[in-house]
Amino acid sequence: MKLYDNTLAPNPRRVRMFLAEKGIAVPLVPVDLLTGEHKQPAYRKIAPNSRVPALELDDGTIILESVAICRYFEGLQPDPPLMGIGVLDAAVVEMWQRRMEFELLIPMAMTFRHTSPMMAMLEDQVPEFGEKQRVVANKRLGTMDRELADREFIAGPRFTIADITAFTTIDFFKLAGFEITPEQRNLRRWYDAICARPSAKA
Amino acid sequence: MKLYDNTLAPNPRRVRMFLAEKGIAVPLVPVDLLTGEHKQPAYRKIAPNSRVPALELDDGTIILESVAICRYFEGLQPDPPLMGIGVLDAAVVEMWQRRMEFELLIPMAMTFRHTSPMMAMLEDQVPEFGEKQRVVANKRLGTMDRELADREFIAGPRFTIADITAFTTIDFFKLAGFEITPEQRNLRRWYDAICARPSAKA
Repeated sequence: MKLYDNTLAPNPRRVRMFLAEKGIAVPLVPVDLLTGEHKQPAYRKIAPNSRVPALELDDGTIILESVAICRYFEGLQPDPPLMGIGVLDAAVVEMWQRRMEFELLIPMAMTFRHTSPMMAMLEDQVPEFGEKQRVVANKRLGTMDRELADREFIAGPRFTIADITAFTTIDFFKLAGFEITPEQRNLRRWYDAICARPSAKA
Repeated sequence: MKLYDNTLAPNPRRVRMFLAEKGIAVPLVPVDLLTGEHKQPAYRKIAPNSRVPALELDDGTIILESVAICRYFEGLQPDPPLMGIGVLDAAVVEMWQRRMEFELLIPMAMTFRHTSPMMAMLEDQVPEFGEKQRVVANKRLGTMDRELADREFIAGPRFTIADITAFTTIDFFKLAGFEITPEQRNLRRWYDAICARPSAKA
């Protein structure tokens, strides 16, 4: 088994953090996004969509998509549970994981892709769209701060994959100018707590 | 238990189709998107993000996000399996479900939101962005046609939630001008087969 990885991109970090929480070690194969290795035929045979991460099993089976890779490891090694305990909790955790993706990760990613000079070479930018997405993402940070007033983690009383998605998103998109404001004390408390976990260094 | 629903929108249809495949009946509560009922305080207490569908359990627990709602029913009634059989297959199905969301649904939805006159009142449109997303989505339809050359369904030999996501997406976004071309014979064969399932009328 091997995990095609990149230490600069946010999605591979989601999987590395998930694996670190479970104490699972998987050999990493670096993919150099800066030289465009992900768009070369060799990597496109593994991941036709050129995305990282990708998990290759010993029989050659490929699993793409960070959350699908995490689901695989959750099934192989349920402990500690990061995707819910039982039917209802699994649905609630999936809801929050997805809300963090659609309401936070995507608007921040769109802002970054469409406004950052770093992405000008790679992306056919529409800055007007990016700036509108910045407003959406910043509003969601405010909502998160209120949501975290009465619960310890994103999906409730336990650390889950929803925290990993939200934390790696906020951490990475500092690059696009996003930040937790001094007034967002619940969000700051949560962020600092996640940041202090050993898995945050994965 | 009740499902907040809307018959015009594509996401509630994903859940209705999933339930129809399982033979599960859930009382539906219509939410009128045309009059903005989803943005009123009463519905926002149920779904703070104003999205449909939303599942309300008898104890008041709310599950948002179509795929999380499907996951809940998959757990309650595993047969017929629509989200994979066993650990590896569940990951593969999740990969395809997500690829259909990120590579097809989102580009088509962005095209519709940012270019359709129907959405001009509701969305702060950036037509330039929408037209670029149209190219991305059409390219993905071409890729799907090639992928379906050697398999019956999106995720392999069995019908899954990935087919539901892709089918309801292609069907709905005809509204934005998307269509299967005469050359896309594999895609057409797949589409017609899904369309003929009784659940497609749900």
